[in-house]
Amino acid sequence: MSGINIKQLAHELNLSAASVSRALRDSHEISTSTKEKVLALAKKLNYEPNPFASNLRHPQSKTIAVIIPEINNHFFSLAVNGIEDIARKHDFHVLIYQSHEDSEMEISFTNRMLNGRVEGILISVSNESNNSGHFSDLSKKIPIVFFDRVYENIDVAGVITNDYESSFNATQYLINCGCKRILYCKALNKIAAGQNRLRGYIDALQANGLLPDENLMVNVGNNKLTNKQLIKSHLTSFKPDGILSSVEEMAFPCYMACNELNLRIPEDIKIISFSNLESASLLNPPLTTITQPAFEMGQRAADILFKKLQKKMFETEDQELKSILIKRASTGNY
Amino acid sequence: MSGINIKQLAHELNLSAASVSRALRDSHEISTSTKEKVLALAKKLNYEPNPFASNLRHPQSKTIAVIIPEINNHFFSLAVNGIEDIARKHDFHVLIYQSHEDSEMEISFTNRMLNGRVEGILISVSNESNNSGHFSDLSKKIPIVFFDRVYENIDVAGVITNDYESSFNATQYLINCGCKRILYCKALNKIAAGQNRLRGYIDALQANGLLPDENLMVNVGNNKLTNKQLIKSHLTSFKPDGILSSVEEMAFPCYMACNELNLRIPEDIKIISFSNLESASLLNPPLTTITQPAFEMGQRAADILFKKLQKKMFETEDQELKSILIKRASTGNY
Repeated sequence: MSGINIKQLAHELNLSAASVSRALRDSHEISTSTKEKVLALAKKLNYEPNPFASNLRHPQSKTIAVIIPEINNHFFSLAVNGIEDIARKHDFHVLIYQSHEDSEMEISFTNRMLNGRVEGILISVSNESNNSGHFSDLSKKIPIVFFDRVYENIDVAGVITNDYESSFNATQYLINCGCKRILYCKALNKIAAGQNRLRGYIDALQANGLLPDENLMVNVGNNKLTNKQLIKSHLTSFKPDGILSSVEEMAFPCYMACNELNLRIPEDIKIISFSNLESASLLNPPLTTITQPAFEMGQRAADILFKKLQKKMFETEDQELKSILIKRASTGNY
Repeated sequence: MSGINIKQLAHELNLSAASVSRALRDSHEISTSTKEKVLALAKKLNYEPNPFASNLRHPQSKTIAVIIPEINNHFFSLAVNGIEDIARKHDFHVLIYQSHEDSEMEISFTNRMLNGRVEGILISVSNESNNSGHFSDLSKKIPIVFFDRVYENIDVAGVITNDYESSFNATQYLINCGCKRILYCKALNKIAAGQNRLRGYIDALQANGLLPDENLMVNVGNNKLTNKQLIKSHLTSFKPDGILSSVEEMAFPCYMACNELNLRIPEDIKIISFSNLESASLLNPPLTTITQPAFEMGQRAADILFKKLQKKMFETEDQELKSILIKRASTGNY
């Protein structure tokens, strides 16, 4: 509330507080001309409804929350922009929350967002542990839509990309470019996106008669410095001739590791990363990426959420969009 | 609320609802052992207080909001992480909101966050228009702290950097490297940060006997494609030998414009940008940056906000931290 309450509006307009309240609720008991007068003054004086007074009966925070692991990630920032694009059309505000892959924070935050604080939640789940039970319960209390990182075992709609196929095709492309020992940066092991990307890599190796090698699959974490050291030690010990990174966050550590070991990209080692990095084309050399349709995924997920809010849709199958392989100099042959 | 209310807690514990309510409010009327029992069960059952019922008298959302122009900007994402670092120590959640430089959205959103939805607001203001009147009013209703982008004419604390000095020193460095015609990417014209950066550039030119030239000051906006075209046309028409960008968002458009015109960096043109870009050292060539202490600025601003919330501090002078010039290959001589 901006200091203005219904009583003050009523006083200014020479109406009863009850009439103003009904006008603000768009009640059929109030004439259109009175409603217009009330709304015009409410707007002029920056009136904001008191959620504690009115929302019990009329929950209308006109706010949704989006929960992502990190804002410092181009895939997620683009997806949020897609979500906002749809929310604006519905005159909703979008709150953003970072989980930093902390599943306890996810639970605590989502519980705090109930009771009309927000009307719906969009989430790309953390990889730390499987919270599918929590989200299954939560989805009975508030509309939820997943995007990119979904739980496959619960009945909540999600928007995903063709992770298996993208990873398979990227691995095949590295093999076509001459790679025989492809280091795989493995992440998101507890969720479908990560599992499908790994399967795509392994299946493409096998389809080309190459043996999957545990030494060439490196588990990466959230610490960029540690990740760079990990990559350096794998480059030194196991001499890969290609790298496929399953997450955007690993692109820079891979480049830095190669630079520090004086490995030339693409002559000595070729690199592809899942990534929506804006700088991909400006890196030295430009980075070949598997680029997800992040903005569209955000739009699609928000569309589903608003349909749920308007009771025009209930749970559906996951919707799958296509990522594309953008070939640049880090894989040489382009 | 996770489906659990005070009545259910009371029933489980064989207490009255009033006692449970008092225990949850840490009332002195309730024994420590009872309080412990109540809190343990509340935690076990994921009890969350109903804000509409209890916050009228006991506003404790334990949530603060941070409003930034864009999440897709490394300065802001680092500052948010600094804010979260402090908030976590106070057991607060941090909601993030993007203004996209839209001052109407700022007003609408901040009004909606009143009434105990959040307990305080941190903001880096939009450049679109001067909302200082709104924030001056708002600061009487809820604790606010500005960071980086502040209003100097109102009595609200802020955390800033030495914008004038940073810009002066960067211009001086370009001149030391041999530049005589330095194109300045001008932004944030309506707020102190932008005005001080521009003054630093002009004063450094004059201190070196160079004439400020309107043709070499290009007003940039929010559209990256338009910005790239603007830079290209200035490069073609006015043949600068250096670029100083006053905002991170212009670094990539400047590189792209040079690439498309086949201008070599740093041989034909040297570039410095205000920037916390992670990729600065991996660009071709690595970019010389004026790097702000973003994480520390977030921490400092959040510290002030929590002191205000605890009534340990009222308004203070702005606090100024120092940015540093990180010299890389885009300015040649390093």
